[in-house]
Amino acid sequence: MLKKNIRQNHLMKKIVTIGGGTGSFVVLSGLKKYPVKLSAIVAMTDDGGSSGILRDELGILPPGDVRQCLVALAREDLLLRKLFTYRFNKGTFRGHNLGNLFMATLEKITGSFDQAVEKASRILNIRGEVIPVTLDKVWLRAELENGQILKGEDKINRSKLLSKFKVKKLFVVPKARANPKAILTIREADLIVIGPGNLYCSILPNFLIKGIPEAIRKSKARKIYNCNLMTKLGHTDGFKIEDFVNTIEKYLGKGVIDYVIFNTKRPAPEFLKRYAEEGEEFVEFDKDTLKKKGFIGGNLINQKIYKRDPAEIFLKRSLIRHHPDKLAKIIISLLK
Amino acid sequence: MLKKNIRQNHLMKKIVTIGGGTGSFVVLSGLKKYPVKLSAIVAMTDDGGSSGILRDELGILPPGDVRQCLVALAREDLLLRKLFTYRFNKGTFRGHNLGNLFMATLEKITGSFDQAVEKASRILNIRGEVIPVTLDKVWLRAELENGQILKGEDKINRSKLLSKFKVKKLFVVPKARANPKAILTIREADLIVIGPGNLYCSILPNFLIKGIPEAIRKSKARKIYNCNLMTKLGHTDGFKIEDFVNTIEKYLGKGVIDYVIFNTKRPAPEFLKRYAEEGEEFVEFDKDTLKKKGFIGGNLINQKIYKRDPAEIFLKRSLIRHHPDKLAKIIISLLK
Repeated sequence: MLKKNIRQNHLMKKIVTIGGGTGSFVVLSGLKKYPVKLSAIVAMTDDGGSSGILRDELGILPPGDVRQCLVALAREDLLLRKLFTYRFNKGTFRGHNLGNLFMATLEKITGSFDQAVEKASRILNIRGEVIPVTLDKVWLRAELENGQILKGEDKINRSKLLSKFKVKKLFVVPKARANPKAILTIREADLIVIGPGNLYCSILPNFLIKGIPEAIRKSKARKIYNCNLMTKLGHTDGFKIEDFVNTIEKYLGKGVIDYVIFNTKRPAPEFLKRYAEEGEEFVEFDKDTLKKKGFIGGNLINQKIYKRDPAEIFLKRSLIRHHPDKLAKIIISLLK
Repeated sequence: MLKKNIRQNHLMKKIVTIGGGTGSFVVLSGLKKYPVKLSAIVAMTDDGGSSGILRDELGILPPGDVRQCLVALAREDLLLRKLFTYRFNKGTFRGHNLGNLFMATLEKITGSFDQAVEKASRILNIRGEVIPVTLDKVWLRAELENGQILKGEDKINRSKLLSKFKVKKLFVVPKARANPKAILTIREADLIVIGPGNLYCSILPNFLIKGIPEAIRKSKARKIYNCNLMTKLGHTDGFKIEDFVNTIEKYLGKGVIDYVIFNTKRPAPEFLKRYAEEGEEFVEFDKDTLKKKGFIGGNLINQKIYKRDPAEIFLKRSLIRHHPDKLAKIIISLLK
């Protein structure tokens, strides 16, 4: 039985997602329904919200993005999955998430974040694996064209300057080594799936870890980028599909992305209006984009309106999201 | 197989412990090694430390004592048991225990503390069951002889007045209904094991819940009281074995306790000195006590010195404890 599983595992196509946060949650939720071997590589630069407080106070690695991927890959009826997702909405713990505290405790007990992720994976009985892009403690920095340096992912995330003064250099301090498991997984992948997700705070931080861009370039896998649905105020204002791709290839190398999956369906006006209030716009595309080699457009919108959980104070309102299944279907169709 | 288990369950002797906190932890740790059906009835008046904060802020029932009993009954090699026991030692979560947060979340998700305990029992795969004495939200009150009323278990626990001005009346507000499961379990028990534990804050609060003393009196079970090893400053100063028993019988009824298990071994002087610094003394016994009917004296001391965990800021130093196995052996010998 074990042998058979190993053989099947060997035969299964290997898909690696790269990102963090809600974007990875969505893409993994869709992909896990297919018989593929899933690995989620996760950025480790989060220093805001619950993860930021836990980093500061307990000296641990940021658990939030990893937690979201673990939850995405856990069985949906599992009580522990619900526990992992629960966010306190008042008192001392307001904004903290039991999953984050669980991960923090696991790191303290096992002595390493790597082991904590492994133990949590077993406890949650996840399909696939979650791989922190680095196990070193790193912080994000953004040097803008005007010379200003923004320190910390949370600060960068909240800044409205990144589209006004372009980012001259995004980097991490101190220099970090890639998690060897991330390098190996990228090397052996059949598909590498980047995004969707916050460009400067979820996607690019993965490519700032030494060895990761090289491994992606060298991998024979097809490289897919799932473009965002909406722009982010002060970060990607006015960005079209190609602007996202160009920014990513600045860090990965020109021409590295083989396929770009993007949304062509404009969400309902009442939703767009709510986003517009915070300066966020639909990511536009030219008709020509549809004809470009490797650009795959389609209706990727999740029509279901997510009920807002008042506890999710650190999450942005989430009316416009990718549909996990629509996204996964296209990704899977790109397997050789 | 299931049928066989049910039959065995029926044949197994039923032991009910009544108490809370560390005392219950110790007695359950010893008893769980025997093939008996174990039920732990737990006081629900804790309003200090981590439990108190969680009660105040989240409006839940106090999880701390229940958690300790769950941990006592969980398999010792289980990772989740370690997680449940972990106490944060700094930052926002200082003094909180992952198990308490886990229980709080379970109560929020399931909508009731009763279900939370049941789910946690399954997750931790415990031997036996843990039964909150009431599912109502209650607070402890102590009316002293001088007319003063102390409000709240934590306040009563910290007060140094209970031995100076005797407790005229210990009661809970508002009036609480007993957990029907507690009544049923007491009724069906073969042995009822009271204590060890903090007299006014762990033991007696169980007997303030309407229906509990009556059920104990009516039960055909043998009733055992495990007397404390040390006095508590301002609570039980100068108490001998009989004073503990008399205080308990004030709430249960004269002559209800069939057996009193007490310690005769004086701990090492260096330990006694450390306790004396906080005004706590060895519980003395007269030679006559050893000859009294139903009084069972013996060396119950745990020689192993507990390493102090700096995280356990809400726990008193714990150099002098009952040995779980020594205690359990005597208790088991009293099964009819």
